[in-house]
Amino acid sequence: MNYQTLVSEIKKKKSFLCVGLDTDIDKIPVHLLKEEDPVFEFNKQIIDATKDICVAYKPNIAFYEALGPKGWKSLQKTIDYIPENIFTIADAKRGDIGNTSKMYAKTFFEYYNFDSVTVAPYMGRDSVSPFLAFDNKWVILLAATSNIGGEDLQYQELINGNQLFEQVLETSKQWGNKENLMYVVGATRPEVFKKIRAIVPNSFLLVPGVGAQGGSLAEVCKYGLSKDVGLLVNSSRGIIYADQTEKFAEVAREKAIEIQQEMKVILDSL
Amino acid sequence: MNYQTLVSEIKKKKSFLCVGLDTDIDKIPVHLLKEEDPVFEFNKQIIDATKDICVAYKPNIAFYEALGPKGWKSLQKTIDYIPENIFTIADAKRGDIGNTSKMYAKTFFEYYNFDSVTVAPYMGRDSVSPFLAFDNKWVILLAATSNIGGEDLQYQELINGNQLFEQVLETSKQWGNKENLMYVVGATRPEVFKKIRAIVPNSFLLVPGVGAQGGSLAEVCKYGLSKDVGLLVNSSRGIIYADQTEKFAEVAREKAIEIQQEMKVILDSL
Repeated sequence: MNYQTLVSEIKKKKSFLCVGLDTDIDKIPVHLLKEEDPVFEFNKQIIDATKDICVAYKPNIAFYEALGPKGWKSLQKTIDYIPENIFTIADAKRGDIGNTSKMYAKTFFEYYNFDSVTVAPYMGRDSVSPFLAFDNKWVILLAATSNIGGEDLQYQELINGNQLFEQVLETSKQWGNKENLMYVVGATRPEVFKKIRAIVPNSFLLVPGVGAQGGSLAEVCKYGLSKDVGLLVNSSRGIIYADQTEKFAEVAREKAIEIQQEMKVILDSL
Repeated sequence: MNYQTLVSEIKKKKSFLCVGLDTDIDKIPVHLLKEEDPVFEFNKQIIDATKDICVAYKPNIAFYEALGPKGWKSLQKTIDYIPENIFTIADAKRGDIGNTSKMYAKTFFEYYNFDSVTVAPYMGRDSVSPFLAFDNKWVILLAATSNIGGEDLQYQELINGNQLFEQVLETSKQWGNKENLMYVVGATRPEVFKKIRAIVPNSFLLVPGVGAQGGSLAEVCKYGLSKDVGLLVNSSRGIIYADQTEKFAEVAREKAIEIQQEMKVILDSL
């Protein structure tokens, strides 16, 4: 999916919600366990219930990988089931030397046909650029993450005046642009968005940490919106595990609508 | 495998060679393509030919993942085939928020029963520590990598006087110890080993970049050896793709012996 289509889907749906498919076989409603592929069945019902409310889905690859080869089959069925007008994110946090990153890129962009993959920046340019060589595919680079350990390295101050996450932005914006490179920025530290927008005013930001991890949507938007919206706000557990009964998909839809309504108010006020 | 066993295998075999199983279906000898599982057949013959010469195998997970579910089956067969006295490394470069890292750790340590997994440090403590919670399992944390892009961030200077890779060492040595935490240090910049040994004198270092990437074993040893050897030097392409004919395993053995003989001379001189 390209930049213009993503922006137009956001404006049409009045939503920049991404639903995280962190589908854990130990957490899905028990009645699904009798299905041949419980993970896919869960995802299918979540997708059916939310596809008109959200603009992106983000399977967390760890949860599929942990099930061995059958987990990858559930992932394949899931990605094939997601409608074409919805942006897909392989949350895989990959990154390696050039020829290995190229292999990861082929896996997620060609074999599974994701629109984007999350990538860790530590190994630098040649670990990221192979992912940027695919048309209409995206890198979502870790910048300032929402977890507590994010502070250990990302907020370290460099002698050039940047914090490390700012250095990641300054450096990587030479490798790609707003059409193929987004950044992961946690919702839990809204003040960081100001610094980020000073460096990448137009890039999309993927924002986890709203809801379960305690971030506020209003705060994120106050500092994070770009002129083309430029945000994908993710919620995983708060939507997909809001209910543990046969009504889980219905409740997931209600939770998704709650967030989307808040987004609509913000978008209408722009 | 624990620290003492690893050290004693190194001393017994007079080798600290790790063979990288970057097994690419497009690069293996064509006569193997008629096998039911060419990737496993290739690995099996490489393992048979080198298992008395090396102390570790390092499958590069990207190459298995790229083949979809059947690649993961080849990986499973490979790891099951590796003798118990050889250290196994899942070169996966994972790292995510706590509950996701825990899932990755279960995958590689329980589902596939690897001894260790490579982990990227950018997300900090809670992205690494779930991997450290397993008995006799290891994290191999990226510190100073051998690729050209390694310089982009890892060599940035912080206001506290450290370069970023030094900060990774200083910080992470509070999370683990020489019994469960190693570091990836590229062979291409031997002068870096001095700085690294000043911070983690006793930790094992996994050293890629000897051979194909241009690093020198003698230089690495001059600055990198610890009192218990403390090095695992990896070679992938230089061994496994040294020959493209039916004699590939035999030639791989010769190449492995060449490196091991150089290691023996160094170990005998200590």
